[in-house]
Amino acid sequence: MKLLLSNKRPLATKESRFFDVFECNCASADSLLISTGYVSIDSILYLRRNIENGAISNLDLIIGMQGFDGFTRSQYEASADLAQYLRESGKGVVSISAAFPYHGKIYCFQKHGNPFAAILGSSNLTSVGLKDPLNYEADILLEDQEVVSRLSKFHGELKQKSCKPFYEWKPKSFLETLKIPGAKKLAPKEFFDFWRRRTDCTFTLPLKAEAKSNLNASFGKGRENRNGFVRERPWLEAEIIVPIEITAMPGYPKLSEFKVVTEDGYSFFCKTSGAYSKNFRSKDDLSTLGGWIKDKLVNVGLLKVGSLVTEDILKKFNKELRLIKTENPDVWLLELKEI
Amino acid sequence: MKLLLSNKRPLATKESRFFDVFECNCASADSLLISTGYVSIDSILYLRRNIENGAISNLDLIIGMQGFDGFTRSQYEASADLAQYLRESGKGVVSISAAFPYHGKIYCFQKHGNPFAAILGSSNLTSVGLKDPLNYEADILLEDQEVVSRLSKFHGELKQKSCKPFYEWKPKSFLETLKIPGAKKLAPKEFFDFWRRRTDCTFTLPLKAEAKSNLNASFGKGRENRNGFVRERPWLEAEIIVPIEITAMPGYPKLSEFKVVTEDGYSFFCKTSGAYSKNFRSKDDLSTLGGWIKDKLVNVGLLKVGSLVTEDILKKFNKELRLIKTENPDVWLLELKEI
Repeated sequence: MKLLLSNKRPLATKESRFFDVFECNCASADSLLISTGYVSIDSILYLRRNIENGAISNLDLIIGMQGFDGFTRSQYEASADLAQYLRESGKGVVSISAAFPYHGKIYCFQKHGNPFAAILGSSNLTSVGLKDPLNYEADILLEDQEVVSRLSKFHGELKQKSCKPFYEWKPKSFLETLKIPGAKKLAPKEFFDFWRRRTDCTFTLPLKAEAKSNLNASFGKGRENRNGFVRERPWLEAEIIVPIEITAMPGYPKLSEFKVVTEDGYSFFCKTSGAYSKNFRSKDDLSTLGGWIKDKLVNVGLLKVGSLVTEDILKKFNKELRLIKTENPDVWLLELKEI
Repeated sequence: MKLLLSNKRPLATKESRFFDVFECNCASADSLLISTGYVSIDSILYLRRNIENGAISNLDLIIGMQGFDGFTRSQYEASADLAQYLRESGKGVVSISAAFPYHGKIYCFQKHGNPFAAILGSSNLTSVGLKDPLNYEADILLEDQEVVSRLSKFHGELKQKSCKPFYEWKPKSFLETLKIPGAKKLAPKEFFDFWRRRTDCTFTLPLKAEAKSNLNASFGKGRENRNGFVRERPWLEAEIIVPIEITAMPGYPKLSEFKVVTEDGYSFFCKTSGAYSKNFRSKDDLSTLGGWIKDKLVNVGLLKVGSLVTEDILKKFNKELRLIKTENPDVWLLELKEI
């Protein structure tokens, strides 16, 4: 039995972290049972990569809440894609709770049909695959044979009595709100108060699809290999490399930090950095700006979750980013406009 | 160590339930430490009542996520009210995580300063106070001295390093969406599709504030006393007693079940029952219809969470309920209109 607590400033703890212990137990297991309230695209992509490369042999996944609370289109497509891959490869199954909203979070590790460890706690399948997940979590690693066996059996009962196979379930609609790490959805009044202070000073930032930068920054340096497990950079990560002709224009916010408010009511912090201020990024996490743009590409059906953005996709999307100055020097507006 | 699993049809389990074990450990404790992601008004009201009557001596509560994700006005006011009561009575403190979103759920029970048990798992402080919470949860009761001591110490570190006292924290805005048990928020298109099929056939259902029925149904029969702990009916519970002059009108949906779609985009099932079909209720849970009406009374500042609805409040509210027939016999529309 071992407590697992996040380690996040300003609260340093000596306990092991959920993701490390999860991965370590996966390495000893030939089959993994997960029942979770929610899934994120990063965690689903992590599992997919590590099943593809053999680090995880078999996965039996139950998604408990999103059949009731809803999926974003990205979350649904990533889950459906994993479900199809597992079916076709015979490497597992994805189910969805239909009888009741299941909010538990249980990870059960088995070898030769014998469950040998389980993690239970607050970590949804959103804490796997990310070096530094947004939320602070509290879990416990259980190794008591009786408890672990019961949790394994419980997984089967839950699947049999409350769940449907994922491929038999279809969402009636998707969540309207994007799931953007680190962004805040503004109340209509706040949003309006920022946008009515717009000025005529606008900079056009082109969207580009280079192999390992711009909208594909997540495919750049930073991929890790540890004991056969691959930890990729979060797929939503992106940045804009702004041409010098634009950053050199009078009024462009050089080497600075500011709040942006998007045309669809999200707010987050961005910064400009690098030579000639060429890098335009969200401040703490490249997934924020990246999420705002890439989730839209998924929502219009142009981009597959986990894939590269191509020039062809951007041509069909036919939009460019506009950065608009407001009367408040600390706040800029951001919109995606038809070219 | 004991697993705690919900018992919800169609998945019957023999494990103890979170709320029973929580209450049983509270009875042996003189101080209770809770750190949770989210709180509900029912759980807050349950704690308040049982601190007032002495069943719980002291409470140290940390709310982890809602400083980031937001509170409904009802949730905020119930929490602020509890925080103020604890401060003034010297019976504890409410804190809110400010440094990071804390998503853990830990309940630690102490006597004479010694922690003797803890529950850790998926249950937010939304699973306490309700006989049959909506979600299925998975938790574990821990009695290992080392683990329980560490969890007690962790609570203190979390409070010191990440939290602010609740009274020092003010929300910038409240969540726009109501938190209505059992209701679904429709996408704008679905909502519009239902409302454009409205007919001219409308029934007016008066709002009333009798002591133990109508909007105060939660104060009626059903309150339980167990070992000194009071379990009240959920405060949001309400029903409409419709006058016979109205239920006798041609076209009134007598003794039937149907979907309702509200003017603000929520959907849930209602039924009419009783002599002359006088009872108009949400189908599975009286808190659904009750929540839709009472949350609005809180939001306009007329009603205090946990209090009786009075005739004076309804006079100031000055609205009546309208039940509107649609072309689809299984779907009715519901609006609150100025009298």
